[in-house]
Amino acid sequence: MFAADFLTDFHLVATIGATPHNGVDRQAATVDDATSRAWFSNWVTDAGYTLKVDGIGNMFALIEWTAGAPFVLVGSHLDSQPLGGRFDGAYGVLAALHAAKNVDEQVRASPTVPPFNLAVVNWFNEEGGRFAPSIMGSSVFANIFDQESMLDTTDLAGVSVRAALNDIGYLGTDPRPTAVSYAEIHIEQGRILEREGIAIGVVDRSWYTQKLDIEVLGEQSHTGATAMADRHDALVAAAKIILLVQDVTNEFAAEAIVSSVGQLTLQPNSPIVVARRVKLVADLRSGDPQIVHTARAILLEKIAALAVEHDIQINVTDFDIRPIRYFPENGMHLAEAAAVRAGLSTRRIQTMAGHDSVAMNTIVPSIMLFVPSVDGVSHCEREFTTDADMVAGLALLTEVTTDLVNGALVEPALASESSTRA
Amino acid sequence: MFAADFLTDFHLVATIGATPHNGVDRQAATVDDATSRAWFSNWVTDAGYTLKVDGIGNMFALIEWTAGAPFVLVGSHLDSQPLGGRFDGAYGVLAALHAAKNVDEQVRASPTVPPFNLAVVNWFNEEGGRFAPSIMGSSVFANIFDQESMLDTTDLAGVSVRAALNDIGYLGTDPRPTAVSYAEIHIEQGRILEREGIAIGVVDRSWYTQKLDIEVLGEQSHTGATAMADRHDALVAAAKIILLVQDVTNEFAAEAIVSSVGQLTLQPNSPIVVARRVKLVADLRSGDPQIVHTARAILLEKIAALAVEHDIQINVTDFDIRPIRYFPENGMHLAEAAAVRAGLSTRRIQTMAGHDSVAMNTIVPSIMLFVPSVDGVSHCEREFTTDADMVAGLALLTEVTTDLVNGALVEPALASESSTRA
Repeated sequence: MFAADFLTDFHLVATIGATPHNGVDRQAATVDDATSRAWFSNWVTDAGYTLKVDGIGNMFALIEWTAGAPFVLVGSHLDSQPLGGRFDGAYGVLAALHAAKNVDEQVRASPTVPPFNLAVVNWFNEEGGRFAPSIMGSSVFANIFDQESMLDTTDLAGVSVRAALNDIGYLGTDPRPTAVSYAEIHIEQGRILEREGIAIGVVDRSWYTQKLDIEVLGEQSHTGATAMADRHDALVAAAKIILLVQDVTNEFAAEAIVSSVGQLTLQPNSPIVVARRVKLVADLRSGDPQIVHTARAILLEKIAALAVEHDIQINVTDFDIRPIRYFPENGMHLAEAAAVRAGLSTRRIQTMAGHDSVAMNTIVPSIMLFVPSVDGVSHCEREFTTDADMVAGLALLTEVTTDLVNGALVEPALASESSTRA
Repeated sequence: MFAADFLTDFHLVATIGATPHNGVDRQAATVDDATSRAWFSNWVTDAGYTLKVDGIGNMFALIEWTAGAPFVLVGSHLDSQPLGGRFDGAYGVLAALHAAKNVDEQVRASPTVPPFNLAVVNWFNEEGGRFAPSIMGSSVFANIFDQESMLDTTDLAGVSVRAALNDIGYLGTDPRPTAVSYAEIHIEQGRILEREGIAIGVVDRSWYTQKLDIEVLGEQSHTGATAMADRHDALVAAAKIILLVQDVTNEFAAEAIVSSVGQLTLQPNSPIVVARRVKLVADLRSGDPQIVHTARAILLEKIAALAVEHDIQINVTDFDIRPIRYFPENGMHLAEAAAVRAGLSTRRIQTMAGHDSVAMNTIVPSIMLFVPSVDGVSHCEREFTTDADMVAGLALLTEVTTDLVNGALVEPALASESSTRA
């Protein structure tokens, strides 16, 4: 019944912003994001919990057993990539809601009150597809990003986060709950668990990542009337940069680094005008920071040579640099012990992708769990995880949440210190 | 005084939609296009001529000496590329207005009435930067394009030509004047006249041109969590296509062909998502159709191989094929004789770019004249032609227009036949 309720809710939420081939499109602060938020809000209120929304659109469902005690946070995000999958983020929020409800029922049936309260969180804009940088809401919560700067961030149409959140009614004013620890469950988005037939990945670290903002400045001219030798075509130079970003991965061992250009805009973008300006974003990630540094140095050198060869200007700026973050050993032990009790196999795993847990782990002890992804695909409509794997993960998250509210990772005496840090 | 008035008006119109570095941005059916249209309308009315606007936004200033007689048309276009130059098109309209006024004064001072009336035209959307295809208004006039299809064409924001013309108040309903001949003067947009020190280019033919609409269909995935080997990145394949389109010109003699990709859109265009779909437009032009056919065949073969290599789908569609158009020999003779009278040097020249005259030449005998472009640059802010060269061209256009209204290219007896063809 517990698992069935979860599955019913999960598959219901997957219909919000549903796309033709079983995906969802619920980009941050769009109408479909607002619909999923309204669903979350109704569920929380119906369960008798208290809903709070902070100044960056994060939503918290507070379950307060002891007035004034700090909170264990569990959650993920309901926003998605454009034409994204229905599991990425949403699974973690739905599992957190049902785990929390289960823990609440246990607590209410028990004579003892746990030292910490519990809150389920739906973080704002984890995906970053509409508003960069990604992992926005949890990073503001963790004081990694400045809230005002993030509210001033605009999408490609010039709409600010502030205006977009205001439009959908989720520019909140509530104070944030004080956190003592955090747990999140998510699909792996890779092939390792599936290949090895393991139920749960216990994340031990995040990859080193950085982006390069690249601006190519050529000269606008008539495609039909400008001799090839006289052109300074920004798009031709940009095409070579896209291939350099791809090819630099060949300088390292297979799968040691991933790189890509996912965003590109050109001006004037007219069929019969040679482009004067192209802006693109390159993304570099590796488990070894030195590999990213070396790849970046190779790219900067080759891009500089390209600018000379094409007699055009290319400006490259580093941004969104995220160091490797290690999850605490005692958190991983806690998860592994809980998995043994639940009869689930585990392995340690790294995350190439960023997650809200990576931001949270900078301020409170955090636990990040993965369930298998079929074919390892993600950020697309055919992203898939079985009901059985989701339910197994939910069982584990319930165990872990129970341990956390009972003070497993943080001594109650340390809670006030943790809350000060938060 | 005649030349001074022209220069005053030319430099005034260059302030409409002016950009920071001496260019203009007056894309078709934008507010700035509307402002230049209002200027044209006021000038025409002040001069005592009759303004007409047809169903595709073409504007005609009618000078009717003989009620019911068909018209010689002279003109060009006031719309521009995004961040375009202030000479491309506008020079031809301003020169046509002042040439027409001069001819009108001559006619009124003369005891004889010429067989044909005169109309100055501002063609809609010659540039095609906002709404493809280019040369839209004159091609509808010439029955090359269907008016209804063109009105349904949309820009990248989804706004139709019909809605855009309606918004600026230029979706007209006036009948079109019957044309017997056409003349246009324009900047060369190349270096030949400047290099050879020649005042006037008499255009003898247009280049063969065609476009390829290319759609690259990859698979959307997470940039941070998808191994390089598992990706089907549409943008990486598109980058290779951009370079193929550039490199194919090396298969032929220098300057025998020009090619480019000027327009590209990608989806989802998110920094951390591998692109699933890229659309781009390739443009191929040559004085020799066989060269374009060969280049196209090479590209289709290499693009097919690329699709196999990347295991993605690439759809290529031919569109906007424009054959070589020859301007009539007697028109070129007329222009050359007029240039001799005006003391101006001439040479025959081909046009790589399309022009309204190319469309008009398919229905009535047409004359196309070029004046020199400094450095040959066009479709950019630093496009430049000297006042002296513009005034020399104006003098020649006045001579040519005088000859045309007097029936130089078309016997008055044939006028009714010509008007039937139009």
